[in-house]
Amino acid sequence: MEKKVYLTRRETFAAAHRLFKSELTDEENLKIFGKCSNPNWHGHNYTLEVTVLGEVNPDTGFVIDIKRLKEIIHVNVISKVDHKNLNIDTAFLKGLIPTSENITIAIWNQLANKISGGKLYSVKLYETENNYFEYKGE
Amino acid sequence: MEKKVYLTRRETFAAAHRLFKSELTDEENLKIFGKCSNPNWHGHNYTLEVTVLGEVNPDTGFVIDIKRLKEIIHVNVISKVDHKNLNIDTAFLKGLIPTSENITIAIWNQLANKISGGKLYSVKLYETENNYFEYKGE
Amino acid sequence: MEKKVYLTRRETFAAAHRLFKSELTDEENLKIFGKCSNPNWHGHNYTLEVTVLGEVNPDTGFVIDIKRLKEIIHVNVISKVDHKNLNIDTAFLKGLIPTSENITIAIWNQLANKISGGKLYSVKLYETENNYFEYKGE
Amino acid sequence: MEKKVYLTRRETFAAAHRLFKSELTDEENLKIFGKCSNPNWHGHNYTLEVTVLGEVNPDTGFVIDIKRLKEIIHVNVISKVDHKNLNIDTAFLKGLIPTSENITIAIWNQLANKISGGKLYSVKLYETENNYFEYKGE
Amino acid sequence: MEKKVYLTRRETFAAAHRLFKSELTDEENLKIFGKCSNPNWHGHNYTLEVTVLGEVNPDTGFVIDIKRLKEIIHVNVISKVDHKNLNIDTAFLKGLIPTSENITIAIWNQLANKISGGKLYSVKLYETENNYFEYKGE
Amino acid sequence: MEKKVYLTRRETFAAAHRLFKSELTDEENLKIFGKCSNPNWHGHNYTLEVTVLGEVNPDTGFVIDIKRLKEIIHVNVISKVDHKNLNIDTAFLKGLIPTSENITIAIWNQLANKISGGKLYSVKLYETENNYFEYKGE
Repeated sequence: MEKKVYLTRRETFAAAHRLFKSELTDEENLKIFGKCSNPNWHGHNYTLEVTVLGEVNPDTGFVIDIKRLKEIIHVNVISKVDHKNLNIDTAFLKGLIPTSENITIAIWNQLANKISGGKLYSVKLYETENNYFEYKGE
Repeated sequence: MEKKVYLTRRETFAAAHRLFKSELTDEENLKIFGKCSNPNWHGHNYTLEVTVLGEVNPDTGFVIDIKRLKEIIHVNVISKVDHKNLNIDTAFLKGLIPTSENITIAIWNQLANKISGGKLYSVKLYETENNYFEYKGE
Repeated sequence: MEKKVYLTRRETFAAAHRLFKSELTDEENLKIFGKCSNPNWHGHNYTLEVTVLGEVNPDTGFVIDIKRLKEIIHVNVISKVDHKNLNIDTAFLKGLIPTSENITIAIWNQLANKISGGKLYSVKLYETENNYFEYKGE
Repeated sequence: MEKKVYLTRRETFAAAHRLFKSELTDEENLKIFGKCSNPNWHGHNYTLEVTVLGEVNPDTGFVIDIKRLKEIIHVNVISKVDHKNLNIDTAFLKGLIPTSENITIAIWNQLANKISGGKLYSVKLYETENNYFEYKGE
Repeated sequence: MEKKVYLTRRETFAAAHRLFKSELTDEENLKIFGKCSNPNWHGHNYTLEVTVLGEVNPDTGFVIDIKRLKEIIHVNVISKVDHKNLNIDTAFLKGLIPTSENITIAIWNQLANKISGGKLYSVKLYETENNYFEYKGE
Repeated sequence: MEKKVYLTRRETFAAAHRLFKSELTDEENLKIFGKCSNPNWHGHNYTLEVTVLGEVNPDTGFVIDIKRLKEIIHVNVISKVDHKNLNIDTAFLKGLIPTSENITIAIWNQLANKISGGKLYSVKLYETENNYFEYKGE
């Protein structure tokens, strides 16, 4: 059996969002979500790291062609979140409070069955330089 | 005369914005401002660097107490832009298209006459890891 | 059962320390601990990353409110190590040689039973940009 | 039993390489390996992170003296790849297509039996700021 | 007169090179250029920062459309150096020893008369995380 | 006349210090210098950037051999501050309050007349990721 390598691709996107529940008042939302509930939105430069685990193909020395992985991430994720409003514009986040926890899981769901030559191992999302979130399908 | 040192304080903030002119259609705005004109907003983690130039006080070894500079930046800038919508929520940006060029100049104007013990030398704003803007009062 | 996300908060602190054993001579300490045994101390900007693993609360989209996690880290760790001497000032490090290995484990012990809504998964400590240490309670 | 800590040392090296198979034409190589197959070579600043897992020695507070680990990495890896052509100059890569996957595994093999006081846990290689690869001996 | 802002675009490229003079022996080249003279080449991930100084257009809030600047840099520089051998493949470096000093000046010459809406102010080139070079047309 | 390039070398060092004036009480020092006056010291990982401005030698393509610059910085600065107490161990800081302003100027004075093939243009010192200081001999 071939050896297994973890391959990670890093991408970035810029988006607006708001943390709130429509059934609550602005005041109640402020209490739960703090300044992230600003009704006029705020935004972030998100950094996304997608890790694939797979055997190294002895013919090419690749787990997966990283150009192909980049394309899969762009088609399924970046094109749908970059310069978007995550509450309004992104179909795959509809119905979710766009916390980084929920975005990370939703990105996993967008990618999990699109990877060939390896399996999705981890999705990591940096919301700021001080806060990041990771989902491994557990 | 005492020697002059450039002292820089780095701060960050997260905000939403949209580049557009209200007198134009969405289509016309898209042509000029591209994806930054998304009517539903997008956002960024901005990094701000404020540089003060001044003589070193021989009594303290400081140009300016950096805790005091941090406070000035928070009161006059960060509290007004962090987790805000730069088109709607920020009084000192009213009437401006919130390009990084215009934000940088407006932050300079917020700070220029608030610094004591040195003079404001530069305001630098990173919009993303690939684009940054600097204004020196010229 | 809800899905599990790893949530990480990054903090920094600046501290002095010295690696030595009081029962040894300076020369013997130098032999074991090298320049880190300087009797007059040296110091670092430490970067601390605390990772919590927990189920995403479907009501809020949070594993744990990251502002609450930040507060827990500040009260139990940062306030006791920032701008301190780790050999002298920090009660939770008393009796330990303050190597990064020992500091990392001691920080884990400070935090392990303070986290609610998830369990402490990892404590990572960067001593410099080239050396970092991680403890997972094993 | 003593507690176990993951200790990581980061090093960098600069090298040239080319992804190609000698039995194929330049055109065929271009199809598989893209611009990385440039017959005149290209190169990278690689960042290498070597992680050792081991029990903390109660006598020193160390898993392994990090100066010793640095030395092991320099003798066995850095001296053989820094400012080298990975296809031509590096004996431990002979016969391999120098993809980051293959380099990462080969560096593991260089180091695995050289570490004392802990066991090699992971070798991570950053090819660019956007692509990195990790091997854990699986 | 409108206010002037310094706008910077950051790009990266990966290339191979060798520092040597063809009229010298390998030994003589080694003496002058050290390990950078390796006859089999080595390489780097270069980071390029291009700064344009110009008045802010009151109609758009832009000095120059940064997408246009990115395009100018790609057409005139990145496409000619990325995944190339700087001694062999890059016409605009022909006849030069590809030190970072010479590359920086040559990139300036590629760009200086291509910028509209502002003038080229600085070209900065990071060869490694520890060495960088800047040319301002002086 | 040859073209002029700004060449920068980055180095790091780890040191302890305390901001205080011996003629004041601990209380008075606390009032002026805050937590930086901790009598038991604290410390930092400092990052130092030394910039030399000079004409490019047409024979080598160098302003100055960067290995030589590194050596000059190590002999005159790093060897005297790394893993040291800046108040006690460093002769070139004697009699100074070791604020970053004063350290930056003192490092300039250590280096200014040691550089050949160019002149010292700037000394920049990062005390933390948020605070940095620059001196240009003014």
